[in-house]
Amino acid sequence: MSEPFRPGGDGIRTRLFQIIFESDTPLAKGFDIALILVILASVLVVILDTVNHLSAAYGEWFYWLEWGFTIAFTVELLVRLVILDKPLRYLRSFYGIIDVVAILPTWLMLLLPGTQTLVIVRLLRVLRIFRVLRLMQFVGEGRLLVEALLRSWHQIFLFLFTVFLLVTLFASLVYMIEPIEAGFTSIPKAIYWAIVTLTTVGYGDIVPITPLGQAISNLVMLIGYSIIAVPTGVFSAEVIRSIRADRYSEQACPGCGHDRHEKRALYCLKCGTWLDEETPDPHLAERASGTPKD
Amino acid sequence: MSEPFRPGGDGIRTRLFQIIFESDTPLAKGFDIALILVILASVLVVILDTVNHLSAAYGEWFYWLEWGFTIAFTVELLVRLVILDKPLRYLRSFYGIIDVVAILPTWLMLLLPGTQTLVIVRLLRVLRIFRVLRLMQFVGEGRLLVEALLRSWHQIFLFLFTVFLLVTLFASLVYMIEPIEAGFTSIPKAIYWAIVTLTTVGYGDIVPITPLGQAISNLVMLIGYSIIAVPTGVFSAEVIRSIRADRYSEQACPGCGHDRHEKRALYCLKCGTWLDEETPDPHLAERASGTPKD
Amino acid sequence: MSEPFRPGGDGIRTRLFQIIFESDTPLAKGFDIALILVILASVLVVILDTVNHLSAAYGEWFYWLEWGFTIAFTVELLVRLVILDKPLRYLRSFYGIIDVVAILPTWLMLLLPGTQTLVIVRLLRVLRIFRVLRLMQFVGEGRLLVEALLRSWHQIFLFLFTVFLLVTLFASLVYMIEPIEAGFTSIPKAIYWAIVTLTTVGYGDIVPITPLGQAISNLVMLIGYSIIAVPTGVFSAEVIRSIRADRYSEQACPGCGHDRHEKRALYCLKCGTWLDEETPDPHLAERASGTPKD
Amino acid sequence: MSEPFRPGGDGIRTRLFQIIFESDTPLAKGFDIALILVILASVLVVILDTVNHLSAAYGEWFYWLEWGFTIAFTVELLVRLVILDKPLRYLRSFYGIIDVVAILPTWLMLLLPGTQTLVIVRLLRVLRIFRVLRLMQFVGEGRLLVEALLRSWHQIFLFLFTVFLLVTLFASLVYMIEPIEAGFTSIPKAIYWAIVTLTTVGYGDIVPITPLGQAISNLVMLIGYSIIAVPTGVFSAEVIRSIRADRYSEQACPGCGHDRHEKRALYCLKCGTWLDEETPDPHLAERASGTPKD
Repeated sequence: MSEPFRPGGDGIRTRLFQIIFESDTPLAKGFDIALILVILASVLVVILDTVNHLSAAYGEWFYWLEWGFTIAFTVELLVRLVILDKPLRYLRSFYGIIDVVAILPTWLMLLLPGTQTLVIVRLLRVLRIFRVLRLMQFVGEGRLLVEALLRSWHQIFLFLFTVFLLVTLFASLVYMIEPIEAGFTSIPKAIYWAIVTLTTVGYGDIVPITPLGQAISNLVMLIGYSIIAVPTGVFSAEVIRSIRADRYSEQACPGCGHDRHEKRALYCLKCGTWLDEETPDPHLAERASGTPKD
Repeated sequence: MSEPFRPGGDGIRTRLFQIIFESDTPLAKGFDIALILVILASVLVVILDTVNHLSAAYGEWFYWLEWGFTIAFTVELLVRLVILDKPLRYLRSFYGIIDVVAILPTWLMLLLPGTQTLVIVRLLRVLRIFRVLRLMQFVGEGRLLVEALLRSWHQIFLFLFTVFLLVTLFASLVYMIEPIEAGFTSIPKAIYWAIVTLTTVGYGDIVPITPLGQAISNLVMLIGYSIIAVPTGVFSAEVIRSIRADRYSEQACPGCGHDRHEKRALYCLKCGTWLDEETPDPHLAERASGTPKD
Repeated sequence: MSEPFRPGGDGIRTRLFQIIFESDTPLAKGFDIALILVILASVLVVILDTVNHLSAAYGEWFYWLEWGFTIAFTVELLVRLVILDKPLRYLRSFYGIIDVVAILPTWLMLLLPGTQTLVIVRLLRVLRIFRVLRLMQFVGEGRLLVEALLRSWHQIFLFLFTVFLLVTLFASLVYMIEPIEAGFTSIPKAIYWAIVTLTTVGYGDIVPITPLGQAISNLVMLIGYSIIAVPTGVFSAEVIRSIRADRYSEQACPGCGHDRHEKRALYCLKCGTWLDEETPDPHLAERASGTPKD
Repeated sequence: MSEPFRPGGDGIRTRLFQIIFESDTPLAKGFDIALILVILASVLVVILDTVNHLSAAYGEWFYWLEWGFTIAFTVELLVRLVILDKPLRYLRSFYGIIDVVAILPTWLMLLLPGTQTLVIVRLLRVLRIFRVLRLMQFVGEGRLLVEALLRSWHQIFLFLFTVFLLVTLFASLVYMIEPIEAGFTSIPKAIYWAIVTLTTVGYGDIVPITPLGQAISNLVMLIGYSIIAVPTGVFSAEVIRSIRADRYSEQACPGCGHDRHEKRALYCLKCGTWLDEETPDPHLAERASGTPKD
């Protein structure tokens, strides 16, 4: 990842930059792992704080832990801003916004006393889990998956549109057939049922009660059970293609500059030039005298 | 897509044809996108109109919006018919029928006053969602999927038949074992249960209550969980085959016989021979005199 | 399919054999399709006869239809036996047994008057659906799937064993944790819950109610959701391998008799013999003088 | 499997070692199969013993069967320890610990009379199912799967982390939206619901009741239904890679450079050259004089 905020000479700032923004030294890796653990711990506190009996028993602990995390994250953000040459540009980036969102709710609770009770403000703190994403990006293994997902995006969109079409049609049909008592009170409710059924989730909170409704239900289930093959097949093919893409060399042809040769290629497939610049072409004489078939 | 209805010279008709029936000019693309949005909006109105409290609050709005959409679609259909040289043939085509079905229910409500209450006629308007399909066909990405589906059709049919066979047998078995109170009142009901179980939907509205019934249930679940691999495997293989067939030529090199060249290859990647036996190699002279870089 | 019962000369028997046992003449195909439809119709009657209100209204019809099907199947079986040279051997084969099972229950109801009420005897008639299998075998598309299933059998068995191990362990764990009121009254019941959860069926008739039980439940769900990839991946790979097996030629090497060459092979990979017996080996002279590298 | 405990000369110990620790003689295979059956039977007894009415009727039987199994396993363990040169090292290995855990609970019940009622101690006996693993390792088919799993480990971890992130966010969102009565009493409860929904299990014990909650539910279901493609695709690709890597060598032909030979190939399939550059071609003379068939 090329950080566009890299500072100039200044010794300490450069070293802090390497620790906080990069991850190729032991110290930087240690910082990353510690940060991930602290972020996950802070999210865990937000989650556990919503459990009534835990909140009653350990509310005080959670309160002070929350302030500890907030102060730590605030210090970390300030250090980041001080290090960078363009701190404002960082604040407007995705990770900058997440960094602010991670600490804002707690500070708001201090500034506006009444907010402490506002559940929504408190829950916004859950968003700090996104901070982990920054550290995930150093994990190279994800790139293959994301690439495969992006390449199969069009097909997955088409698949979801088809699902949406089927869901709308079957929902309208069952809405017409089933009596109100079965819970199909409107088409949006019937769409909820159709998605529950097609995706094989099957809550069972709304189910058809007429034989015809159950027959349609059976059809929707079998369709859902079968078409799951579509995104799976498309994505499998893309992952296999990604793996195979490893087969391509990054070297360009010295003759025409073409640069997507399979690694096993000896000659450029566009202009026939011998690709290995360090050894002579073994078939040169042969070809010089005409086509090999002569 | 080759439209068999393309009009002759006439300037305005030809331009309208390009906008409405084709999609390769900016204006035509704009028209397509606007049309998709209007269609989706009109379907949304039909859906929301079935929600009681929305219908009570905004019924009037929905009524006039519905008329707006109907008049727009009617004008659009008339323009289509005027443009085409064989309008009747269009009316008998799949898209022509859908265009008529999209506007007919609303006009029927006007002509036959009592129909306004007929839920079925009103719900027929949902079918106008099929109008979106016409515009989807311009998206080329779907073709690969449809081709793969068609090629795996036989296997998927066999799979569904096997599912049907298993479902019938297990349903009969559980119908015999379970008491009436468990809800297995007839084999069709037991088939409904078996499909709910095999497809891993699992509503839970009818479940076996005897230990033997639960053991059979476990077997059906494990079968359902395992055989989902069949359509997925078949379809994955077909998508992979489609992608690969797209890339590699079946032609062998006339020089060394190597036979796995990408379709875009002009020269053999193993011996540098010009692959097209019918035309001369444009770089022959150049290469004969040494490497091109000299 | 090679029928081991094929009759000798006798004109009518041979023609009947072709119609009833084979499927390559138009008449034989017509017979097969008619037979499939009759079998499915007879199974449908058995199924619908279990629906109380249908049975009350159309019981008489079902009764006579059932006799019609039974007589038709009996005649068909007798004709089969008369045609064949070894009728007893046919009766002991899988299809012979199914043919007898398909008609026996109805005849039993006649011979032993009281049996008409025996639900089990009547339901045995559902087994006649297996008769359709005979006709499915002419559909060649299934062979690829069955081959792939057989080849992945070992891995699918290992997968199911792993599932069974996980299910037993998690079931014991949840049985210890959850109170009796949650429905986990014994380990077999807990195993039922674990399978319902791991296969993502999720009836919801037995669910954990303690936080720890729900946490284990979450773990089981995530495992079930992830390991479904295993049978799917194995089977996909096998289907792809089956398709690729088409790549192998059936021709044996004229030199050493080795017979699994890829179709693109020009020389035997075991002894280096030129495989195409109709044209001379183009590299023969070259090799005779030593290895090509000299 | 190379056992690091193999004894020296001593005749009987070596023979017992071959029977108990190895599996390549008929006697050793018989011992393995008998042991698997006994282990599964002993686990079955533990499981059935928890069913009240079975325990009431056959409790005595189960008690003596349990003692039979425990004594058999104890004798087996003692024999293993006597055979081995380093018995203590075996006791500290995974299989040694499992062997001890398999017999300890029953002996504990004898030594500490009160323990018989301790459900947990008794259930520990279920862990003896792990003893089967030792015998599974001789089944070579599992290695391919385990290798593919290990290679896709990083991607599956990333996938699970993404699932966890989605689950936390959607759970917090639904916790805010849904009223307490719907059962979303805390975020951990909402996470339980989100996992039930995303993995398509769908118990239905906690479901959203507000339209907005149901809309989010729909989104979670569709995401869960789609992203199952990710582990499946990754694992499929890895299995395919494993199978392929097993078959093709990476070595190129010294004659023509062709580089996709099956590992079992001795001669190049394109030019018939002997592939092993270090030994002479055994058929050289023969082939030089013409086709072998002459």
